[in-house]
Amino acid sequence: MRVVVALGGNALLRRGEPLTAENQKSNVGDACEALAPIALEHGLIITHGNGPQIGLLALQSASYEGVDEYPLYLLGAQTEGQIGYMIEQGLGNLLPIETPLATVLTMVEVALDDPAFDNPTKPIGPVYSEEEARKVAEERGWSIAKDGDRWRRVVPSPEPHRIFELRPIHWLLEKNTIVICAGGGGIPTAYNSDGDLEGVEVVIDKDRASALLARQLDARLLILATDADGVYLDWGTDKARKIERTTPGEIEQYEFDAGSMGPKVEAACDFVRRTGGRAVIGALTDLGAMVAGEAGTQFTIE
Amino acid sequence: MRVVVALGGNALLRRGEPLTAENQKSNVGDACEALAPIALEHGLIITHGNGPQIGLLALQSASYEGVDEYPLYLLGAQTEGQIGYMIEQGLGNLLPIETPLATVLTMVEVALDDPAFDNPTKPIGPVYSEEEARKVAEERGWSIAKDGDRWRRVVPSPEPHRIFELRPIHWLLEKNTIVICAGGGGIPTAYNSDGDLEGVEVVIDKDRASALLARQLDARLLILATDADGVYLDWGTDKARKIERTTPGEIEQYEFDAGSMGPKVEAACDFVRRTGGRAVIGALTDLGAMVAGEAGTQFTIE
Repeated sequence: MRVVVALGGNALLRRGEPLTAENQKSNVGDACEALAPIALEHGLIITHGNGPQIGLLALQSASYEGVDEYPLYLLGAQTEGQIGYMIEQGLGNLLPIETPLATVLTMVEVALDDPAFDNPTKPIGPVYSEEEARKVAEERGWSIAKDGDRWRRVVPSPEPHRIFELRPIHWLLEKNTIVICAGGGGIPTAYNSDGDLEGVEVVIDKDRASALLARQLDARLLILATDADGVYLDWGTDKARKIERTTPGEIEQYEFDAGSMGPKVEAACDFVRRTGGRAVIGALTDLGAMVAGEAGTQFTIE
Repeated sequence: MRVVVALGGNALLRRGEPLTAENQKSNVGDACEALAPIALEHGLIITHGNGPQIGLLALQSASYEGVDEYPLYLLGAQTEGQIGYMIEQGLGNLLPIETPLATVLTMVEVALDDPAFDNPTKPIGPVYSEEEARKVAEERGWSIAKDGDRWRRVVPSPEPHRIFELRPIHWLLEKNTIVICAGGGGIPTAYNSDGDLEGVEVVIDKDRASALLARQLDARLLILATDADGVYLDWGTDKARKIERTTPGEIEQYEFDAGSMGPKVEAACDFVRRTGGRAVIGALTDLGAMVAGEAGTQFTIE
């Protein structure tokens, strides 16, 4: 079975933990322990978030005075290299030596008239107190929004329309390569008025990009792995309860947070509805049980 | 004919130019103008240097106080994403829309007992005056060396032994994909005492890695593109003269600069001697004529 597993930024970095190389390596190592058994049984495509990493690179790029700050799409390309490398190496260390792995840089097309440009929702970078966040937002011209009980920078997150490297990814899968791709939702690109592809100053939601990828690669299963063990109704209240199984028609009655669970639910529904396949939202540590249909929130068409 | 073109850091950034996103895009655009006609006629693999870029990332990473500086291999992985993206997008914009392109993250094995660890030769980062270089070297514990008439940080550059993603690269070439890989000479990795692959705090010479790649992919032609129009004897003196055609046996009588032309000449000789193929060192702007055997310094077995 062909399976796409999307690793959330929060699955790769515990909330509040400093983004050191060591912490990331340790967390990626844990993720790879969960992924390795799946890789031995299924055709595996791994995607990942880049919110904390791209935010740190933006701060580093801004703090060094010698060279102007880089645009987000270029920093996004850097994170595809950085995180892809850590996953590829970590997973390779757990699998038989002959297992082919490849990290494929991925560009994803967005529409320049996407309404998301007027409504930044995607959190990136470190968390701040409200006061710190308001101060840094004023200094740097950022949009900010609440993420859990802290505040973060938010950037527009337009819908992904096309994965440019789809054929190379498909050819590698045909040879049983484990492919790591669409990191950070892919590098956002659009055609300019000259008809040339150019980077766009946004961050694509990696769950939406993963749903598009899974659909176009004819995957049967899409797993959106995060640090929560499933989708909850009334999250953060004492009536909070986990949804074990659902369908797009059922779950779309409810509203979820636009910065985190909302895009995941939307991506899962989109994949299930368009393909008839199965999608799961849940904790990376439950990956095996999620694949087996026994953990997380399981989405099916009926 | 299968051709490997290695783009030098100096082919992607004019000496002394600030490393802004705009300057890199413009220079990569020029490189892609030279590469596009080759891509239309031949099977093309593109590798690239990362000296200026990895040096800048190291400075940015060190200048931001929130998180410890990242190791060079992780910054190297970032540069593979960043530069690969710029080349893939720039070249894609010049080729028929159906042309498949892929940037493949590449890890390369080095030996931990390589004598290069005791003798740093690979320049990275910005150029400095001698006085500035000595000051920053003392502050940061860097090794430094002369690069042309300025000074730069130097790091060890051990020999590349194995390209881990060779099979995925080969499979993509079989489908006529233009592959961008082994950026910055590849991410340096070695097996630790637990038998796990780990990053190593060095930068592999991209010309040597390109020669290894070209040989293992059965390429017939290896082009090492830089900002000089060929290899010169008595470079920097008024007796300077360009070598038009040479053989490994002939050119190995001479000594070249260990930080720049030396590894290029060594890589060209290694490829020619082991494969019987042709290698060329010359200016990126002469790429077409270099492929045709009419520019640069042409290396053949006899």
